[in-house]
Amino acid sequence: MLLLAISWLLIGAIWAGVHPRSSAWAGQENQALEKTASAIGEAEHAESAHELPFSPILLELAVVTGVAMLGRWLAESLKQSSVLGELLIGVAAGNIGFWLGIPLFVMVMHLGEAMPLFSEVWLTGRAVSDAASEIFSTAELAEGGSASRLVEIMTGPDGPRYVAMTFALWMFSELGVILLLFMVGLESQIDEMLKVGWRALMVAIVGVVAPFVLGMLTGMWLLPDAGSTVHIFLAATLCATSVGITARVFRDLGRLQTREAKVILGAAVIDDVLGLIILAVVVGIASTGQIDALEIGRISLLSILFLGSVLMFGGKLVSWLVPLVTTLEEHHVKLLFPLALAFLLAWIASAIELAPIVGAFAAGLILSEEHFKKVSGQTTMESLIAPLERIFAPIFFVLMGMQVNLQSFLDPTTFWLALAFSAVAIIGKLVCGLLAGRDTDRWSVGLGMVPRGEVGLIFASIGKGLGVVSGSVFSALVVTVIITTLITPISLKWSLFRTSEVDEQM
Amino acid sequence: MLLLAISWLLIGAIWAGVHPRSSAWAGQENQALEKTASAIGEAEHAESAHELPFSPILLELAVVTGVAMLGRWLAESLKQSSVLGELLIGVAAGNIGFWLGIPLFVMVMHLGEAMPLFSEVWLTGRAVSDAASEIFSTAELAEGGSASRLVEIMTGPDGPRYVAMTFALWMFSELGVILLLFMVGLESQIDEMLKVGWRALMVAIVGVVAPFVLGMLTGMWLLPDAGSTVHIFLAATLCATSVGITARVFRDLGRLQTREAKVILGAAVIDDVLGLIILAVVVGIASTGQIDALEIGRISLLSILFLGSVLMFGGKLVSWLVPLVTTLEEHHVKLLFPLALAFLLAWIASAIELAPIVGAFAAGLILSEEHFKKVSGQTTMESLIAPLERIFAPIFFVLMGMQVNLQSFLDPTTFWLALAFSAVAIIGKLVCGLLAGRDTDRWSVGLGMVPRGEVGLIFASIGKGLGVVSGSVFSALVVTVIITTLITPISLKWSLFRTSEVDEQM
Repeated sequence: MLLLAISWLLIGAIWAGVHPRSSAWAGQENQALEKTASAIGEAEHAESAHELPFSPILLELAVVTGVAMLGRWLAESLKQSSVLGELLIGVAAGNIGFWLGIPLFVMVMHLGEAMPLFSEVWLTGRAVSDAASEIFSTAELAEGGSASRLVEIMTGPDGPRYVAMTFALWMFSELGVILLLFMVGLESQIDEMLKVGWRALMVAIVGVVAPFVLGMLTGMWLLPDAGSTVHIFLAATLCATSVGITARVFRDLGRLQTREAKVILGAAVIDDVLGLIILAVVVGIASTGQIDALEIGRISLLSILFLGSVLMFGGKLVSWLVPLVTTLEEHHVKLLFPLALAFLLAWIASAIELAPIVGAFAAGLILSEEHFKKVSGQTTMESLIAPLERIFAPIFFVLMGMQVNLQSFLDPTTFWLALAFSAVAIIGKLVCGLLAGRDTDRWSVGLGMVPRGEVGLIFASIGKGLGVVSGSVFSALVVTVIITTLITPISLKWSLFRTSEVDEQM
Repeated sequence: MLLLAISWLLIGAIWAGVHPRSSAWAGQENQALEKTASAIGEAEHAESAHELPFSPILLELAVVTGVAMLGRWLAESLKQSSVLGELLIGVAAGNIGFWLGIPLFVMVMHLGEAMPLFSEVWLTGRAVSDAASEIFSTAELAEGGSASRLVEIMTGPDGPRYVAMTFALWMFSELGVILLLFMVGLESQIDEMLKVGWRALMVAIVGVVAPFVLGMLTGMWLLPDAGSTVHIFLAATLCATSVGITARVFRDLGRLQTREAKVILGAAVIDDVLGLIILAVVVGIASTGQIDALEIGRISLLSILFLGSVLMFGGKLVSWLVPLVTTLEEHHVKLLFPLALAFLLAWIASAIELAPIVGAFAAGLILSEEHFKKVSGQTTMESLIAPLERIFAPIFFVLMGMQVNLQSFLDPTTFWLALAFSAVAIIGKLVCGLLAGRDTDRWSVGLGMVPRGEVGLIFASIGKGLGVVSGSVFSALVVTVIITTLITPISLKWSLFRTSEVDEQM
């Protein structure tokens, strides 16, 4: 087992080793670029003179995929969920790389700052350092500060390479989260949501309201100086429930067909939709800077209208479109049509100010294998799209982990925030188990609702992107996601085995 | 049928329609960015204030995928190969978009120039317009010239968005061509190459030498002022044979098991390897600016050493690695291991100055389903990787087509070049059919070797990237690829039906 870890670390070392060497290469590339007009004689590589090289991006993809694999393996060895392994290995790799001063890791950890800097440089036509002085505070720009390191790397001879590599990683991770939510949508059909009915709805609503109220109170108590926007964003992040993690735990325990599993999955699906509406509302509030009842109404209505019309008419539209597209493309329609639909709905959602993931999720909800029953070939739509999701979604989780700066925990505020958020997150969800009904194991339902998973991370990252969630609050939220995800498999297994005899094959 | 075309054009129109509107949006984003420190109140979208928006990239992916689909459908309706359809629809879309002045299309058509401009801006910290004056000639920078339009778009308020979208398209297309060559490698196992033996080798060698000599002579005759580097690159581009297109035609005709098919496929595979070695040699020559026998020897040796050692020991190494990785990742090893291997070998190839596709192809050659026979699950490795290739490879061909500026044909030189190259390309490959042996239909073998396909395009694009292949020669070469690809299905069908009775089900 250790051999495996060592072989992967070796690959990591090769990657890290590239960077010192690449400085020398880039020096030559740089020379070549300065004489671009007659660059043919100067170029080192086939691609280096006139193009950004693509092969470092390939290596990056291979290494991140390998690192994610190692994280999943470690998590599974310790009987934890895969998502947790990807997050934690991201945290470990990100902080080790940051501590070693590897430029790419420094850039990735400050992804939230690197992106606006990039835009500022292009929009103003200024030098990177000038643009940075516009964006960052004097403290951040001081010698040794995070912003000054960022500027140093971006303006260094390897700057374009690192910008390209960071951008590529960001793009693949965004693609991954779109594909993930699309798959979650695919796996939770509308029928199943309706079957579990009112009980799941009650659990879902309480599971959103309780952590929200508790989150608001915690925010007011621990962050009294922050605006109400910050409190709302924080509370909203704690509302999320992760369908993926919950479903995975029940599947791992072979208990997907129990009453508890159905109530939790139904509630989690409704929670996802509620969470996305809350996200829209919260982002709207963050954008206007104040709580505007009219704005909340407008955005809620827009979310419900979009999701409602997609869910109402989407299925029929798809039934009408699939045969048309099938005449266009018989062989690959099962792969290409769902993806094109997911991407289009994600774009439409974004165009009406919703998060793109809302559109991808909706696309997944309205599509089913039924739509392709007349298309030849035995492969299912899901089996065609799953490989794409399996490649790109882990990149999102690893990248999320890599943005957690462990140094921020040296700040006692962050430490206590993480502790308080985790407590609120767990208590808030346990409460909703009470509404599961007498014939259901309420503890199991409550515990099954605890993991925040990807939806919580998406909330936190959007909040960070908007500048609402500060670095330390973001780190605390990511740790909350990690803790809630970590305790779920353990506590849920205990809870399920507490009441009944089950073969212990996990 | 027309309805379908109209519905797709509508989507295209929506896309195009976004751009005028987006100017207004971007104006607001711009303002927001200028006040980034207090941007929360200014942002329009969830992502626009602090991040480059991802949803336009999703729309772009959906539209390019849809356009490629339409191209394939048109090609299939006219009984042509799919690759041809993707190329031609790319040419049509690219030139219509360019003619309409849609910024993204202008940038994509000048991708070869946009990339070094991007690097120059980052490396020197200069404004885009200053950097442009370093890279482009005065004629190109004149009012209305291609370079001045490019600078205008890149420095406009939507500049970062278009840079991001162009970069994304380039990245997905590069990923596509890596995946394509990996799949071609997977489909052509080492055993099959050896089975067809000497006859295929003879056909392959003559199929490379004849077009090379003819290409050199044509270059010297039509482009006497260009250096010998240009002649060599041109001749090398004409040597390529596309395994994909040839195999596809035979499969479409249901004749994959004939002697002709085996000889052609064997020769095409050898041609691929020969072509990649030639590519390395030619790129080496282009890089040093002169023909250096020592350098040719060094690069040939390096190519042969790399490919040889990968082919010799790669299979064994994989047999040893797969069980190790399987303990790490039992569920997804069939998907993740092959991809990681392809990406790693592509990077290693690039690190020793070979083209990344050489590595991806080699990775495909050494991998086989046999390696995963002990892994549970019935899905094959190929069926897991195929969806990825099906999404990204068409982007490469559409993007290739979009870079063909039809205006360059107004120049009579380009017109005659395209005609001469096509003649040479066809004659050069027909000659090699003579070595197929008496018991084989020589016409069919010769015609089967004609399509240049993706390998020719890759040669041309690397040549353009290096600055060796000028815009008009590039356009002429792409047209040569189109013509050789276009005539193959038609002429090959005629040739095969000429000698024997076959059921005409194409």
